[in-house]
Amino acid sequence: MTRLFNTPAAFADEALEGFVAAHRRWVRRVPGGVVRATPTAPGQVAVVIGGGSGHYPAFSGLVGRGLAHGAAVGNVFASPSAQQVHQVAKAAHSGGGVLLTFGNYAGDVLHFGQAEERLNAEGIDCRTVVVTDDISSAAPEESAKRRGVAGDLAVFKTAAAAAEAGLPLDEVVRLARLANARTRSFGVAFSGCTLPGADAPLFTVPEGRMAVGLGIHGEPGLSEAAVPTADEAAELLVSTLLAELPEGVDTPRGRRAGVILNGLGSVKYEELFVVYRRVAQLLDEAGVEAVDPEVGELVTSFDMAGVSLTLFWLDEELEPLWTAPADAPAYRKGALEPASVSSEGFAEEQPEQTTVPEASEESRAAARTALDALAAVVRTIDEHADELGRIDAVAGDGDHGIGMRRGSEAAYEAGRRAQGLGAGAGTLLCHAADAWADRAGGTSGALWGVILRQVGTALGDTERPDAAAVSRGVTAAADGVMRLGKAEVGDKTMVDVLVPLAGALGEAVAEGRPLAAAWDAAATAAEAAAKATAELLPRLGRARPHAEKSLGTPDAGAVSLALIARAVHGVLAAKND
Amino acid sequence: MTRLFNTPAAFADEALEGFVAAHRRWVRRVPGGVVRATPTAPGQVAVVIGGGSGHYPAFSGLVGRGLAHGAAVGNVFASPSAQQVHQVAKAAHSGGGVLLTFGNYAGDVLHFGQAEERLNAEGIDCRTVVVTDDISSAAPEESAKRRGVAGDLAVFKTAAAAAEAGLPLDEVVRLARLANARTRSFGVAFSGCTLPGADAPLFTVPEGRMAVGLGIHGEPGLSEAAVPTADEAAELLVSTLLAELPEGVDTPRGRRAGVILNGLGSVKYEELFVVYRRVAQLLDEAGVEAVDPEVGELVTSFDMAGVSLTLFWLDEELEPLWTAPADAPAYRKGALEPASVSSEGFAEEQPEQTTVPEASEESRAAARTALDALAAVVRTIDEHADELGRIDAVAGDGDHGIGMRRGSEAAYEAGRRAQGLGAGAGTLLCHAADAWADRAGGTSGALWGVILRQVGTALGDTERPDAAAVSRGVTAAADGVMRLGKAEVGDKTMVDVLVPLAGALGEAVAEGRPLAAAWDAAATAAEAAAKATAELLPRLGRARPHAEKSLGTPDAGAVSLALIARAVHGVLAAKND
Repeated sequence: MTRLFNTPAAFADEALEGFVAAHRRWVRRVPGGVVRATPTAPGQVAVVIGGGSGHYPAFSGLVGRGLAHGAAVGNVFASPSAQQVHQVAKAAHSGGGVLLTFGNYAGDVLHFGQAEERLNAEGIDCRTVVVTDDISSAAPEESAKRRGVAGDLAVFKTAAAAAEAGLPLDEVVRLARLANARTRSFGVAFSGCTLPGADAPLFTVPEGRMAVGLGIHGEPGLSEAAVPTADEAAELLVSTLLAELPEGVDTPRGRRAGVILNGLGSVKYEELFVVYRRVAQLLDEAGVEAVDPEVGELVTSFDMAGVSLTLFWLDEELEPLWTAPADAPAYRKGALEPASVSSEGFAEEQPEQTTVPEASEESRAAARTALDALAAVVRTIDEHADELGRIDAVAGDGDHGIGMRRGSEAAYEAGRRAQGLGAGAGTLLCHAADAWADRAGGTSGALWGVILRQVGTALGDTERPDAAAVSRGVTAAADGVMRLGKAEVGDKTMVDVLVPLAGALGEAVAEGRPLAAAWDAAATAAEAAAKATAELLPRLGRARPHAEKSLGTPDAGAVSLALIARAVHGVLAAKND
Repeated sequence: MTRLFNTPAAFADEALEGFVAAHRRWVRRVPGGVVRATPTAPGQVAVVIGGGSGHYPAFSGLVGRGLAHGAAVGNVFASPSAQQVHQVAKAAHSGGGVLLTFGNYAGDVLHFGQAEERLNAEGIDCRTVVVTDDISSAAPEESAKRRGVAGDLAVFKTAAAAAEAGLPLDEVVRLARLANARTRSFGVAFSGCTLPGADAPLFTVPEGRMAVGLGIHGEPGLSEAAVPTADEAAELLVSTLLAELPEGVDTPRGRRAGVILNGLGSVKYEELFVVYRRVAQLLDEAGVEAVDPEVGELVTSFDMAGVSLTLFWLDEELEPLWTAPADAPAYRKGALEPASVSSEGFAEEQPEQTTVPEASEESRAAARTALDALAAVVRTIDEHADELGRIDAVAGDGDHGIGMRRGSEAAYEAGRRAQGLGAGAGTLLCHAADAWADRAGGTSGALWGVILRQVGTALGDTERPDAAAVSRGVTAAADGVMRLGKAEVGDKTMVDVLVPLAGALGEAVAEGRPLAAAWDAAATAAEAAAKATAELLPRLGRARPHAEKSLGTPDAGAVSLALIARAVHGVLAAKND
């Protein structure tokens, strides 16, 4: 039960503000998150981590000497936006390139991936390493699909110690990947968590029961059992991890491993110690030497009651990186010389853009239509926000309506500003795209950013945009969303609507029908496709334990896309000539 | 809800075992608790802390360089026994004397006080400093009666830094007292906590309500209100503390203060940060400079949902001690050189006594009667354990029956061993006294230790013990219990029975009645007095929020004393000659 907050919407920002106020010796606030307050050696690789809020000490509590250089901090359980990641990485960069590392969740993969592209485009050498330690989230042969949980710490610590040692980006990336490949976690949960302002838990576990392998956002587990004794819990965790040894570890006997027994929020320290007592005995019996064990709360999920065990199978290369000193607000080990706190400040907001590329009269005219369309999107989402939230709560975390609202409003405002500067349709939509992705965060924010940007790019600022250009843009948007979202038709996502929409639009345009009429056909196809998603099952990652319950309910992202398509048709029909 | 345990009775011991297994770089297990695993400079004052389990990181998590030298660890919410404190202090002592410092709770005051006496008797210079920071637990003019909560950390840290600086015991004591005098805490709670194996919370707060000033074991608060916003909570905490400035701090403006925003168990980090955001603003507006603020879980109460704010008003003497480096499992600041871990081990058990003082034939005969009496006590307590627990649950924490059972069984076993060595009545009862106090812990354990020891001392090992000697012993026991327990007649404690019992016994003996007959009268007086305690209100400290509910229910300690008096009469009557 999360009780202490002001307004739920401000919770993540206010928590970050208070966190920084309490930890000025370690961190400094920058747009998008925090970076170290202590100086970093020039040329050192910057390790930038991040994710949603609600997992403290992940991620801001892990920023400091010997650990991360910066953390991008998203909203509650929502990934930071690509712009946030980009801003934090720029602030953390000290000339040696940037490693972005984070847990494997759809929204994070999207936004960190976009930030990586942007940084490389700007000439900052940047790579990503995704943490996939949760063995219950996919089979060994699909280990790349696994979620990242408390194993984050093993990968972050390894990468940061390698960076601190002055290794080049290639080596830091190699060692981070090696650490991830040799890290395995497994967890159990006894209760869900209640987000600020929510009147019900995000997900639940029946009283007296244990969900085996349940994800930290309620992603589906493997099975359910009665709450065990502490010793039984330890035996389940250890035996499960010893049964899936990583490549290169043929037998546990004689091995050395970093050990993390992680509490998820309301399993208390004494309980963790009672469990660790038995974990230590079992590892000893198996011939495994525990190196610098960590027992406590390292990656939490608000007040979720659960515990996970992580084994980080060390070798001569990894052990010194795991045991190297570190000094972050929530993670300290070894001895470091005292460090000065650099006074250097940061602007809380980036300077607003004041110029836009030259645009033709025709394109500026089309920009007015584009802005009207954005206004129509805002109205439609506003009308349907509650309905979208209800639909999303069935298979998602119920915040789709809020995210779409935040995103569409920011997109319209950015579009209006761009128009005021005389932007053409392409630039107007690209500004709107960035604003939507940045303000909304999460998966849908990123995907809508892609859609608007692709359409904007197809329209450009010089030609009079015709139906063919719009159709090219929508097709490119569908391709971009599938690529970035790693989703295909049938996964019960907006892709199930965007692909038929693009298809119908393309056909109608090929038949030579004018834009408004072609779009009408596309919107109709979208509406039918959205309804049809009710018969699909959501793919892993976005799914909740009661995913199957979502059969019969359409996907929220698919429904909002169909609603938007229809609203845009209204604008195009009105402009019809 | 505490879910992960094996057997509730073993919880505290197993948690300590797991804690040590996870923190071998910092601490080493010794009988009674833990001491630093790192070497301490010879001649340095040893700061020994302690208290019940269930408050992690208090107390074992605060042992390490720059913080405590050792911690005596009691059972769940029960003070460690005097013998535990004594053993830990002996292990921690490095020639500079010992400071025992702990929160102001009856059981801790008793046991640490006895340990202090024992250490001084052994030639180890020892003092105690009791922490009394919780302003809601007594009025300013009665500040010595206040409970110790998160302010423990301010006092422990100050004392330990002073010791680390090489100051002599007198100075360490003076600075610890000064720190306590300048430390104030105030807290609110939203829910109680559930102990391992308990099927109901130890105490509760109505859903959606906030108990203002509620103690960490459920001791009575000041008032109740609706759960506030985070900002409102911060405003209540700060304004209350600024309204009671310590002596020597006339105005907050221009002052520097250590700040501790403490979570009690299931208020999560992000919530604490949202509250701290406003706390920092308010302190700033009041002109108070926050020095090394600590925001997190420092003194918890299992899964109790609550938060407390502590202000430690610094001066030029105290600030360097507050900011000095420290490296304990759950508290680290600043930079310390790496330290070796001393391999030196400790026997888990003290060598059993194998000799007893010479005893006369008459005294050895009386010892047999004394052992029969102890056996009768065990039987009586065993029969009534559940009933005593039920009575205790009304105004106490419901563990009276368990404590009396553990204590009486240990006393009988120790008596049996002493008899095997040919002990007289005096020695037998003194061994029984130590065993009872050590095994039972808590307040009643200490008091029963006093009773048996006083009677044993009066009987001695040489004379044939007569009624007068027994009466002298019981009178001395009543005096000792009142002195040690700081309780008077009318406080609804065992004193309300022990005093009339001693009085009736003394009168009957003065009238020349034989022991058995005199004891019969005393037992009858005890039974009447025990019933009469139903009309009394428990004094603060042992009381629960629903203390007034205990009107109509007698005191469990009083009832068990009356039961024991009657059982002992049975033995004396049987021996009657």
